[in-house]
Amino acid sequence: MVAGALPLGTAESKPAISDFTLENGMRAVVIEDHRAPVVTHMVWYRVGSADEPPGKTGIAHYLEHLMFKGTDKIAPGQFSRIIAENGGQDNAFTSRDYTAYFQRIAKDRLGLVMSMEADRMRNVNIRQEDIVAERDVVLEERNSRTDNDPAGRFREQYMAALYLNHAYGIPVIGWREEIESLDRDDALEMYERFYAPNNAILIVAGDVTPDEVRALAEEHYGVIEPVDLPESVRATEPPHLAARRLTMRDPRVAQERLWRGYIAPSYVTDGDSAAALGLLSDILSGGTTRRLPKMLTLETDLALYAGAYFSGMARDMGEFAFYAAPKGETTLTELEGALDWMIADLLENGITEEELARAKKAAIASEIYAQDSQGSLARQYGAALTIGLELDDVIGWRDRLEAVTVEDVMEAARLVLVPERSVTGYLMKAKTEGADG
Amino acid sequence: MVAGALPLGTAESKPAISDFTLENGMRAVVIEDHRAPVVTHMVWYRVGSADEPPGKTGIAHYLEHLMFKGTDKIAPGQFSRIIAENGGQDNAFTSRDYTAYFQRIAKDRLGLVMSMEADRMRNVNIRQEDIVAERDVVLEERNSRTDNDPAGRFREQYMAALYLNHAYGIPVIGWREEIESLDRDDALEMYERFYAPNNAILIVAGDVTPDEVRALAEEHYGVIEPVDLPESVRATEPPHLAARRLTMRDPRVAQERLWRGYIAPSYVTDGDSAAALGLLSDILSGGTTRRLPKMLTLETDLALYAGAYFSGMARDMGEFAFYAAPKGETTLTELEGALDWMIADLLENGITEEELARAKKAAIASEIYAQDSQGSLARQYGAALTIGLELDDVIGWRDRLEAVTVEDVMEAARLVLVPERSVTGYLMKAKTEGADG
Repeated sequence: MVAGALPLGTAESKPAISDFTLENGMRAVVIEDHRAPVVTHMVWYRVGSADEPPGKTGIAHYLEHLMFKGTDKIAPGQFSRIIAENGGQDNAFTSRDYTAYFQRIAKDRLGLVMSMEADRMRNVNIRQEDIVAERDVVLEERNSRTDNDPAGRFREQYMAALYLNHAYGIPVIGWREEIESLDRDDALEMYERFYAPNNAILIVAGDVTPDEVRALAEEHYGVIEPVDLPESVRATEPPHLAARRLTMRDPRVAQERLWRGYIAPSYVTDGDSAAALGLLSDILSGGTTRRLPKMLTLETDLALYAGAYFSGMARDMGEFAFYAAPKGETTLTELEGALDWMIADLLENGITEEELARAKKAAIASEIYAQDSQGSLARQYGAALTIGLELDDVIGWRDRLEAVTVEDVMEAARLVLVPERSVTGYLMKAKTEGADG
Repeated sequence: MVAGALPLGTAESKPAISDFTLENGMRAVVIEDHRAPVVTHMVWYRVGSADEPPGKTGIAHYLEHLMFKGTDKIAPGQFSRIIAENGGQDNAFTSRDYTAYFQRIAKDRLGLVMSMEADRMRNVNIRQEDIVAERDVVLEERNSRTDNDPAGRFREQYMAALYLNHAYGIPVIGWREEIESLDRDDALEMYERFYAPNNAILIVAGDVTPDEVRALAEEHYGVIEPVDLPESVRATEPPHLAARRLTMRDPRVAQERLWRGYIAPSYVTDGDSAAALGLLSDILSGGTTRRLPKMLTLETDLALYAGAYFSGMARDMGEFAFYAAPKGETTLTELEGALDWMIADLLENGITEEELARAKKAAIASEIYAQDSQGSLARQYGAALTIGLELDDVIGWRDRLEAVTVEDVMEAARLVLVPERSVTGYLMKAKTEGADG
């Protein structure tokens, strides 16, 4: 089905967005952008680390690495070289809800990259020798990003404490002990189960027309048979009844840190609350209001930096969090006290119409800015559709933001900022004698 | 293979233990006990809540309930009635590592119960009407045992915090949200996958000979075809790097409570350390030494009760924990301070030879006492073999205990009682205004 081209509601850039679905169930979105003769081509699979079976954490990301190893047609290691030889760039990323592959290349090479991406959708060739070598690459990636970085390890322990049951608490790269035993069968099982046109979303942004994209997509992707997708069952999250805390001490910690997080609705589970929480994080942390950094750095001089964020682009649930780094002799306990005071003040006295108006303005400005980038527009649509949103959710985003009221924000804040649902983390310099249990 | 009868090493009761394995892979243990003309018949399956797929917590226990619903031969609800009409009792239990079914009945009815148990091993008949009714029974069980009991809910939140990745952190009965959606397919999938002779252990204790048991077992169980058992993959547990805490407040809390736990080796993963930890828990909590209750209730008058336990009969890992209830005006923080002091004192000053000797004596006495009960002996062997121990581990238990030295205990204590691996829980009366985040 070809939907009509839907103009976005901003005057500055009006990319025409259209979509269609191939006979085999593969969804496609075309974002026209005729400023330069290039295209961004992305294929998103609805599978991420939250879909991994027990004991196999890291397999989604590891499979992403192995997808570059070649097919019957592409020799081992040649995939990215061919893209580069054609003047393009390519890469991939794995998240909790999706795995995506993309290339940015001259418009006349779109057929080439589609043929290559379609080929590896079902015909990847994973050799035993690549299995071990690439696993070492992943382990080294884990070493440098997490294991050698106290803040990275702290973040992992914090996420594991934040979720009682759901796989969002597991690091996308996987737990080291489990990465070490991942093998070819594990990779192929996930590949065969989830890599299929009816579990994929094609995003093409750039100097193309919907008709051109459709013709190429039918030629390359349309010929792939759909698979029987298994029911996708994920763990749920039971009620959070007990406030949790964690304290990690490490001699390599250069800067101590306070972290406070709460599970929250996502744009998928409750779009209105998520919109309100996004604006709340901006009021507390960004834009011109910046309540939290102002209070903790300027007024009280307790923190080097402080902020809040809302992470809501997720299929099952979002996260609202605060963070701060103590300044000078300030202790994490003092910093936490000030944070608690600010949260109590927020819940008691609310926000003002003016703060909300400013946050909306900032959110809409950054939305307009993002639309200026072909790559970020493509990512926005790819991520939204893969987690279960619709085109209209993205297109109508601005309207949804505009509709948020002060009372909506406060209702969402009261829903989420509940002590018994909180996790508070202290990352501390190791002492030889710790007082803390 | 029939092993020779192996006498246990105690003079008071010498049950002869023998074992054999049927052609189809079903293991059997016979515990002779000729004091009364009765038998205890148990079938243990190597599947428990730790083997449940994501999103399906509670399915192992729910399946246990459904196993009483009948087969093609036994009409719905008649299983237990037939046992009762023959003067017997029957029941079942589900744990993290196993699900077991048992009957206690006159010796001449052993063939009858075997025929019934063998029948439901592969031919259970789960009707759609039972699915909903029995799910309500399970939900009501969860209501009364957990949801209506703050201590039960606290225990669940504590266990979820204790494990970062492994399914031992999930309640055996399942999370309510997931129990509610369990269906017939979920039950049958687990049943067909795990309920098979080559995944089962038969324990018969009582007034029988090994030859009698073997003949009956071959007749009833020997005719069942083995199944292809899938590789049993469980989540591992990543390193614990951050001390964790949780605070739960509930207006229904009559008695506040302190909890402190650590992941520990199990009898399967490290039998020597587990033996030492079992003795340590006895030194701290039981027997005549009772360090912890003496200090917290008698010497300091801080606690109403206090204790320690070690739970090590598990396939993947054990747990060492302390608990205490504050007395009068004592706060949980004060109580925790005293507990920390005791742990520091233990690690610094160790235990004495005399304390260890007393703990061994108590452990051996309770072992002898347990051997007096046909049911508890049968359970002991069933649990041990199902989690992966061997007959010799049970039979040689006393020797292993005797061999533990003071240094072994201290080494195990230093291995386990590490602050960054701890979880500390506060169960508190709800206040209208909480100071704690």
